[in-house]
Amino acid sequence: MTAHSHSHHHHTEHHLTGSEILTDIVIGMSDGLTVPFALAAGLSGAVKDVNLIIIAGIAEIAAGSIAMSLGGYLAGKTAQDHYYSELRREYDEIERLPDMEREEVRVFFEGLGLSPSVQNQAVEELVKDKDRWADFMMKHELGLEKPDPKRARKSAFNIGVSYVVGGLIPLSPYFFTENGIKGLQISAGVTLLCLFTFGYFKSKLTGTNPWQCALKVAFIGAIAAGCAFGIAKLISA
Amino acid sequence: MTAHSHSHHHHTEHHLTGSEILTDIVIGMSDGLTVPFALAAGLSGAVKDVNLIIIAGIAEIAAGSIAMSLGGYLAGKTAQDHYYSELRREYDEIERLPDMEREEVRVFFEGLGLSPSVQNQAVEELVKDKDRWADFMMKHELGLEKPDPKRARKSAFNIGVSYVVGGLIPLSPYFFTENGIKGLQISAGVTLLCLFTFGYFKSKLTGTNPWQCALKVAFIGAIAAGCAFGIAKLISA
Repeated sequence: MTAHSHSHHHHTEHHLTGSEILTDIVIGMSDGLTVPFALAAGLSGAVKDVNLIIIAGIAEIAAGSIAMSLGGYLAGKTAQDHYYSELRREYDEIERLPDMEREEVRVFFEGLGLSPSVQNQAVEELVKDKDRWADFMMKHELGLEKPDPKRARKSAFNIGVSYVVGGLIPLSPYFFTENGIKGLQISAGVTLLCLFTFGYFKSKLTGTNPWQCALKVAFIGAIAAGCAFGIAKLISA
Repeated sequence: MTAHSHSHHHHTEHHLTGSEILTDIVIGMSDGLTVPFALAAGLSGAVKDVNLIIIAGIAEIAAGSIAMSLGGYLAGKTAQDHYYSELRREYDEIERLPDMEREEVRVFFEGLGLSPSVQNQAVEELVKDKDRWADFMMKHELGLEKPDPKRARKSAFNIGVSYVVGGLIPLSPYFFTENGIKGLQISAGVTLLCLFTFGYFKSKLTGTNPWQCALKVAFIGAIAAGCAFGIAKLISA
């Protein structure tokens, strides 16, 4: 859901691991803060018993974190299977249809504005090594990068934990009050502050304006909570 | 959350629009079917009043669909801003540090296995056109594609609507019964069947085994619902 991008490209390789974890935390926490917050807000306007808000909130955290982490894990596995099936296809095409694949390489160099003679020389040199050729087709024709098998598992874990941590923040005020609206007021204050702070730091990852990002993230939370509150109040009336 | 990939690369350009809409539907509907289903399942084990399950479910659908669609829309806008700020940076670096940028182009060709003389010829020809040069750096150094401004808005709409449609499926059985557990039984049957069917067709997009994909998607829903049910029952006891 969130754009994966690095703050400054000259540091990409240096900060790769750190920024992957941060990306996972951003993905998990932005949904974790937003959806349980909005659900609890919605119920606060429609339900008398605060315990019900807590039960629904925790059920949502369980459902949302599992859907995101397990869903992400299996999507990662699928991406991996897809990569290797496409790689096999490329090797196969290089064997069976070398002229077609060679032409696809030439078209790539043509697109870069190279002259016909340099295109042909570059093609000749690149196709000498079949592994490099297949790798080239994967990257530049299909836009597929080799997936890291450990990454899917780690990423699922990070996203799931971030969702749970994020989700417990908007829910926690309801533990200390008997009054849903009172809980909502504290929850809204705490959560919007967290979303704002979180958006500010998130901008470091995407390389955009921090205040603008902070406002955007808090705005999404406020709109989601406001709509959930209004709709729940309407149907419970 | 879902791997964006196309079924067969030789048809990528033909099917682009169709597959973008399908990708949006897959993203919105897989979460829409899963999370409201699991939340309603969780509440079925903990709450007597079916109306509360419906109110919570609808509040969740409102919260989740807004968080996903508005979140996706603003993430798209951020990606767009990011693209243009990086593009300006590339033009700026081409003006200020042409030797460094030229070396980065050479290293790219070196990585393809080209000989030093072809590397240099290719660099000379590519850097003749500054727009092409900047475009090359964006694509092959940073891995950034030019974003479509209309895409973010359409995608947000598609994802939001799919989430709402998906979410109403697991919730609908509760409209017709007074008994939460009865509602859960029908909801589980209907939703797991939908997830299974949905996973089967989703595999057409990702190019993986249809039955395996169908089982995976249904499995995520079942696990999420089972955990939400167990946890909600535990804390409400």
